Amino acid sequence: MIAGIEMGGTKTVVAVGEANGSVIEEFRYPTTDGPETFATAIDWLGKRGVPSAIGVAAFGPVSVGRDRPDFGSMLATPKPGWAGFSITGALGEAFPEARVELETDVNAAALAEADGLEDLVYITIGTGIGGGVLSGGKLVHGVLHPEFGHWLPRRADGDDFAGVCPFHADCLEGMASGPAIAKRWGKEAKDLPAGHQAWEFETHYLAQAVMTLLATVNPARVVIGGGVSQAEGFHEQVEAKVREWANGYFPALDENKPFVVPPKYEQQAGIRGALLLVGQ
Amino acid sequence: MIAGIEMGGTKTVVAVGEANGSVIEEFRYPTTDGPETFATAIDWLGKRGVPSAIGVAAFGPVSVGRDRPDFGSMLATPKPGWAGFSITGALGEAFPEARVELETDVNAAALAEADGLEDLVYITIGTGIGGGVLSGGKLVHGVLHPEFGHWLPRRADGDDFAGVCPFHADCLEGMASGPAIAKRWGKEAKDLPAGHQAWEFETHYLAQAVMTLLATVNPARVVIGGGVSQAEGFHEQVEAKVREWANGYFPALDENKPFVVPPKYEQQAGIRGALLLVGQ
Repeated sequence: MIAGIEMGGTKTVVAVGEANGSVIEEFRYPTTDGPETFATAIDWLGKRGVPSAIGVAAFGPVSVGRDRPDFGSMLATPKPGWAGFSITGALGEAFPEARVELETDVNAAALAEADGLEDLVYITIGTGIGGGVLSGGKLVHGVLHPEFGHWLPRRADGDDFAGVCPFHADCLEGMASGPAIAKRWGKEAKDLPAGHQAWEFETHYLAQAVMTLLATVNPARVVIGGGVSQAEGFHEQVEAKVREWANGYFPALDENKPFVVPPKYEQQAGIRGALLLVGQ
Repeated sequence: MIAGIEMGGTKTVVAVGEANGSVIEEFRYPTTDGPETFATAIDWLGKRGVPSAIGVAAFGPVSVGRDRPDFGSMLATPKPGWAGFSITGALGEAFPEARVELETDVNAAALAEADGLEDLVYITIGTGIGGGVLSGGKLVHGVLHPEFGHWLPRRADGDDFAGVCPFHADCLEGMASGPAIAKRWGKEAKDLPAGHQAWEFETHYLAQAVMTLLATVNPARVVIGGGVSQAEGFHEQVEAKVREWANGYFPALDENKPFVVPPKYEQQAGIRGALLLVGQ
């Protein structure tokens, strides 16, 4: 039996499934602190058998590099009961025979959405903005893992919003996350109609994100998920700006294929990715 | 005998060397068209023996992905006598027994500068701006290879220069390459003294480039080479801006280690990287 755990900021998903990412049975419950959240997952799994392998897709910051001394642990985070919690430790104690693989939630989602591609980026826009990068068939970590929300985009014309990131004010996350939209317009993204100026700004920032990715990791596709991306025509508008700005320059932008797309697996991308981590 | 060839836009270097990247003997000559430039390299090598392996570090655009149908060839380029030229074809005909490895010049330089690191970016600022990315010990290609000069940085305060990129006007290359500096100030970078406003702008753009890399591939070090980077204090100024903007956010920015550095191997990085391609 193989298992997957997707730890999200507000909910956790634990599942038993198949090597190809298919979920056989799953349980969704609210994320609390580290020990309690994992005790629930372990209890649920234990009632179903002994997993031979467990894939974990975790929110960050989390140490995912096997050569790091803190591998498997959550790093400094304001989220209560998580800093220093060892994911691999908790699972290893409960299921000592199980192989445990750990990735960021966005990297796991990138894997789930790859669909045979070796070079793909998964961006999620919600409370924050995160990105998972699959490059040459491998998930990118770098020193820790990409923190894709925190570079400095060029402002959209007419946008004088100060930004909400406590570290960088007007970084990508500071200008284009769900809380940035809510603060700028006094409304949640889901309550802003198509054609509202908010979407002109939002698609501007995400199109810049895509340009940045084309220049750095040159993917074959960019998947954008998360609540904010569910607005009508969102992906098409981002892609139209990218194609206009790119001006024919990047061969990755095949004229005959959509480049910026919604997640194929929607809310299932994370848990499918967690299963794929141990299924491959 | 192992050999390396570094094809630059203006000069080519051919060398015999060692698996660790050391050059035993080299020849530098002006780059002309593809067939002539390679005939010279092949002739020089042939007089020294039969190489068992040849590493090539090439300017772009060049097809470096082994699964691409055009692998080994130069792609569309305005440089006369290069579009469609097959590097692997020319070398395979001359030295049918030799294993040929091909990379972009900047990826080869990243490899040479890695010095045991698995995650490092090499940026060069000259006629254009290019970047080579080593991630998890592998050189990043993506669909073709990164074209690091062509994303859209935020302007420096007070900079109203239109930019020189024929495709994107004010992309990174359009604002911060050697020709951009020359056009903006009427002087070459080497003739602009320390303290000139030019360096405030230039380090602003490169610091943004480093922020973008921290957020996407999260390297342990960024090496900046090329003529423009040789100004006094350049790397320190870029790093100071990065640390100010990053505001303690990225663990990759170790307080005790320089993060933005000049190339250790200076003009030799490309040819050393070419040798390392076949030395490993």
